[in-house]
Amino acid sequence: MTHATKRLAKQMRIGVLTGGGDCPGLNAVIRAVVRKGVEGHGWEIVGFRNGWQGPVEGLTKPIGLGDVEDILTRGGTILGSSRTNPYKIEGGVDRIREVLAAEGVDALIAIGGEDTLGVAKRLTDDGIGVVGVPKTIDNDLGATDYTFGFDTAVHIATESIDRLRTTAESHHRALVVEVMGRHAGWIALHSGLAGGANVILVPERPFSVEKVVEWVERRFERQYAPIIVVAEGAVPEGGAEVLHSGEKDAFGHVRLGGVGTWLAEEIAERTGQESRAVVLGHTQRGGIPTAYDRVLATRFGLHAVDAVAEGDFGVMVALRGTDIVRVKLSEATAELKTVPLERYAEAEVFFG
Amino acid sequence: MTHATKRLAKQMRIGVLTGGGDCPGLNAVIRAVVRKGVEGHGWEIVGFRNGWQGPVEGLTKPIGLGDVEDILTRGGTILGSSRTNPYKIEGGVDRIREVLAAEGVDALIAIGGEDTLGVAKRLTDDGIGVVGVPKTIDNDLGATDYTFGFDTAVHIATESIDRLRTTAESHHRALVVEVMGRHAGWIALHSGLAGGANVILVPERPFSVEKVVEWVERRFERQYAPIIVVAEGAVPEGGAEVLHSGEKDAFGHVRLGGVGTWLAEEIAERTGQESRAVVLGHTQRGGIPTAYDRVLATRFGLHAVDAVAEGDFGVMVALRGTDIVRVKLSEATAELKTVPLERYAEAEVFFG
Amino acid sequence: MTHATKRLAKQMRIGVLTGGGDCPGLNAVIRAVVRKGVEGHGWEIVGFRNGWQGPVEGLTKPIGLGDVEDILTRGGTILGSSRTNPYKIEGGVDRIREVLAAEGVDALIAIGGEDTLGVAKRLTDDGIGVVGVPKTIDNDLGATDYTFGFDTAVHIATESIDRLRTTAESHHRALVVEVMGRHAGWIALHSGLAGGANVILVPERPFSVEKVVEWVERRFERQYAPIIVVAEGAVPEGGAEVLHSGEKDAFGHVRLGGVGTWLAEEIAERTGQESRAVVLGHTQRGGIPTAYDRVLATRFGLHAVDAVAEGDFGVMVALRGTDIVRVKLSEATAELKTVPLERYAEAEVFFG
Amino acid sequence: MTHATKRLAKQMRIGVLTGGGDCPGLNAVIRAVVRKGVEGHGWEIVGFRNGWQGPVEGLTKPIGLGDVEDILTRGGTILGSSRTNPYKIEGGVDRIREVLAAEGVDALIAIGGEDTLGVAKRLTDDGIGVVGVPKTIDNDLGATDYTFGFDTAVHIATESIDRLRTTAESHHRALVVEVMGRHAGWIALHSGLAGGANVILVPERPFSVEKVVEWVERRFERQYAPIIVVAEGAVPEGGAEVLHSGEKDAFGHVRLGGVGTWLAEEIAERTGQESRAVVLGHTQRGGIPTAYDRVLATRFGLHAVDAVAEGDFGVMVALRGTDIVRVKLSEATAELKTVPLERYAEAEVFFG
Repeated sequence: MTHATKRLAKQMRIGVLTGGGDCPGLNAVIRAVVRKGVEGHGWEIVGFRNGWQGPVEGLTKPIGLGDVEDILTRGGTILGSSRTNPYKIEGGVDRIREVLAAEGVDALIAIGGEDTLGVAKRLTDDGIGVVGVPKTIDNDLGATDYTFGFDTAVHIATESIDRLRTTAESHHRALVVEVMGRHAGWIALHSGLAGGANVILVPERPFSVEKVVEWVERRFERQYAPIIVVAEGAVPEGGAEVLHSGEKDAFGHVRLGGVGTWLAEEIAERTGQESRAVVLGHTQRGGIPTAYDRVLATRFGLHAVDAVAEGDFGVMVALRGTDIVRVKLSEATAELKTVPLERYAEAEVFFG
Repeated sequence: MTHATKRLAKQMRIGVLTGGGDCPGLNAVIRAVVRKGVEGHGWEIVGFRNGWQGPVEGLTKPIGLGDVEDILTRGGTILGSSRTNPYKIEGGVDRIREVLAAEGVDALIAIGGEDTLGVAKRLTDDGIGVVGVPKTIDNDLGATDYTFGFDTAVHIATESIDRLRTTAESHHRALVVEVMGRHAGWIALHSGLAGGANVILVPERPFSVEKVVEWVERRFERQYAPIIVVAEGAVPEGGAEVLHSGEKDAFGHVRLGGVGTWLAEEIAERTGQESRAVVLGHTQRGGIPTAYDRVLATRFGLHAVDAVAEGDFGVMVALRGTDIVRVKLSEATAELKTVPLERYAEAEVFFG
Repeated sequence: MTHATKRLAKQMRIGVLTGGGDCPGLNAVIRAVVRKGVEGHGWEIVGFRNGWQGPVEGLTKPIGLGDVEDILTRGGTILGSSRTNPYKIEGGVDRIREVLAAEGVDALIAIGGEDTLGVAKRLTDDGIGVVGVPKTIDNDLGATDYTFGFDTAVHIATESIDRLRTTAESHHRALVVEVMGRHAGWIALHSGLAGGANVILVPERPFSVEKVVEWVERRFERQYAPIIVVAEGAVPEGGAEVLHSGEKDAFGHVRLGGVGTWLAEEIAERTGQESRAVVLGHTQRGGIPTAYDRVLATRFGLHAVDAVAEGDFGVMVALRGTDIVRVKLSEATAELKTVPLERYAEAEVFFG
Repeated sequence: MTHATKRLAKQMRIGVLTGGGDCPGLNAVIRAVVRKGVEGHGWEIVGFRNGWQGPVEGLTKPIGLGDVEDILTRGGTILGSSRTNPYKIEGGVDRIREVLAAEGVDALIAIGGEDTLGVAKRLTDDGIGVVGVPKTIDNDLGATDYTFGFDTAVHIATESIDRLRTTAESHHRALVVEVMGRHAGWIALHSGLAGGANVILVPERPFSVEKVVEWVERRFERQYAPIIVVAEGAVPEGGAEVLHSGEKDAFGHVRLGGVGTWLAEEIAERTGQESRAVVLGHTQRGGIPTAYDRVLATRFGLHAVDAVAEGDFGVMVALRGTDIVRVKLSEATAELKTVPLERYAEAEVFFG
């Protein structure tokens, strides 16, 4: 960058925000955006608080180099988050326009999942320059090989399965481990493979309880204790109604553990063996990101700044192999990336 | 040891067994017993399988130096475990006597909790030489400062609380973390202190839901998300009936999460804030022992061998400060070591 | 697979071996090969011991399902390893032919780095069916996006950098962390990015000591302590002679730490600030593999079996995006995959 | 506390400072002092920056509840540290008196090692009320069973030894691991026991190289790879001059690794086997404290406040068994707590 363009660029003010659920790596993206924006381009970076609520209500927070010194390893997001959708607020988009004008903000970098990026796409269509950064621990966002947060979730789930193995063995019990994944079984598939699970169940393929029981019994016959990893969104064939964790049951009580507890009970009844459920829950989405996720989140942040610098809006940064590329936001949010059946089939040789 | 005593000692055969539930560090004790028995005294070590079932049914497994090379860091027990009580089996004690005679076993080292050590005590009264090694992740065994397995359980629970903090903050939720401890609140107290919990509830002191709600609301007012750590055996004042995790509810369904899920629901209803329960369950008792537990388990094993070498039976090794001492088994199993109220009171300054 | 092909397949015997240096994930590959070979195809799997020494000298070890039950999380290799090259042994290849014939082994799966796979390629040219599985913690093998072992090495290095940061800050010291990477800077680049290093130095780009000192001083001026991550193979511009860790210096003493200790001394002298080196060394290549590496190693093993089943020899399995593909061994071992300068440039915005 | 005493107590202002080297758990003490001081007694807490430099130069920083919300898990110290000794500064003690008077500070809590606590003792003799909190990762401070920071150091060293084991085995190498401990071998003893080391060397007992070589060779003969854990302060018998890590050698170069690298070379020469040194260095004193250290540090902080509240100055809080007690500072700093020979002898059964 020549001195002249640097001076010119200094006038630019870029906004950044984080939307949706917690995900390890959010702060790593923010840090990269600030470092590259400030050091690389001489921009000023304006943080908007609480997702889209920030630009709608003018909740800003200037963030400089000092503010991001210490955040690379921290879970959560220093900008806060929300599920606010400006398109569901009367005059929401106009207020964003006003806030950006008042703040002198030239463009936005929006870090979030399907909803946040859906808004980003519509805003771009409406003439506001936005670059998206994909975020979901579920890894179910199309157009990118992986999203940050996923590796951390798999790491945590795998560590738990490792611990449960010795206790399953010494108590001769079946252990059902319910992991996150309402619509996509990526966490179940990867943590199940990494943890050496004896059955893996995913939402993409309704499971036969009889078949699960068969695998479990075969495992017990070989004098081992079976570990069954089940995504929270997995469903039994024929559609037995299984409550999700966190929903109220017929008696008004909130259920902890949905399909996992249901399945543990089925296994116990049908095999006569002890069977227990463990629901990993929110432990999967908190805490320090893995090195993998920090690198991915950092590179996403750097490349989002590149896109802004080139005025290439309406795009999302994405991982393809080892490259960070850009894809149209319209394409990125078009459909859920579920586990292909051939990937699931790969794992079946470890069942039983 | 002089050459003469060494030669004499070589004739000795000592049995070792593990009873009760899984606990990180069992294999470290076995390894220490074998190393010290074989290398230090020239003994032969005979492993008995599956707790007291081994000496009753003559299930043996010779274990030499090679068998314990690789087990220091492994969870579970290479000898297997059970809850068999020879005093509940007709002729059980006589069969032990016969098996020991047939195997030429001179004395036993029994590693276990209250039940296993209770049998050890009675066998010593009945003329069979036994030395006990205390084991319980709950840390509720009298006469020793700590038992191995406890530090690992606290470590795992604390790590989970660390992870839950960022997700609680970013979702503005109350998170109730249910940890092990049916009768004693040691894991809750230590992991709650270490994890910076905003409320800690233990079985030793029935809790007021009103007070919990007050702390939770105060926390929300200060713009933080409350973490409540609750031992599975904690009960509300006035004795509201709270099911334990794993028990069947009125509708015949096994509950996952007892007091933890109940409390999360109460908090949500009374505060109007989102509230979620996480039940750590069996993850707390499996996996690789911490360095602390490996050192403690190793020292227990070494000192148990010393007691056998001196013919000092009917005792249990115990930690007092930094010393390993011996206490009478009768004393050791006399009463449950619960959390003293002053230790609990120490923690209250962190509530709210 | 129909019953008929299954019966036919049962006759097949496939050999597997591991060559070269230690790498987390080797056992995960072996386990996957056995599960898929035995359960999926009805083959018998023969382990050859100590790399190519096994097939040369007929050192075999039958491995069945039971042998791989417990190895997924273990570092090292149950088959042992060596750097034996049959092409450097007179009659080596003929002896392999004889051993394979005598053992009734139809094909080989060879897991290793450049050298091991180079032999695999030549053996295929000489008419012996071999499928390769790439292995190097350095990630410097062409034709695959990543190799297993790399993620674990980066994870360990990053964890160390995280720990060093607080101690650097509180002692106001520069800390130079020397990581593995003789010819390629992948571990330095990824762990440096993930650990928030203030300077990253790689073999691909000779560094200017003056520039490093400038970054370090800028960092101190901003009241932070600089962390410099340096690959063991990094060299200063102008070719100052820097010894590698493990080499003997002019006085006949083995050096611990090469460029890292040299650089720490330079920094101390030129800045007048305290500066220390830490050489992570072999801690980076041992221990339990990360979940990422277990999944990658497992998938490599499964796909290597597919290649054998299809008679597709002379190939190596490789990662491309999220797919496992096959590439010619000749292509795979053609050149070292070094860090492209644009990837290094990406990181520079974090320097200083 | 009655309302009246609470109102009275509110007038009190208490100072807190941290001195000496980095140690995991310092922030946990500060947090406990603030919580208990403010919430329990209604005091104001004044942080003094950079150890004794703070009260000498009047460098203060008021710390309230909000400042300690987030610091429990953080390494380092939010107050900074130094090695300033007011007794080595002309008029230093008078300046402390003036600063305390000007700030209205009634008493001090000083967290530190031998030096910091030595000053605390003399200040108390000179009429300034100080309560001490012991801190050293080396665990070599008399009068307390353990100091915080030690468990974290042992945990980190043990984790490294665990990782080195597989790589030692697969490369058939002797690995010498140099850990902290200039004058006391506690870290070497505990991490050596926990990591299953085959030789442990401590400063308290000069070692025979011949004996070490014997153990190493015996280990190789049994087809295992030896791990030797050596404290940085261990010395060979007869006083061969071994440089310490960080010192300059005869050629003016700073040595990385003292006795560890020297010993690895000796082993290689005398056994003809490959031998490598790994120097863990500063990784041992940084990062997130273990749960054990957080609990201990927290309890130390709470009890230091109790001592201040009771006007019991000139004391240090200390761990005895599971109790926190108070000991005279004069007693606490009287002598170094080294490893007793019988504790070292306990470990010898694992050598070779």
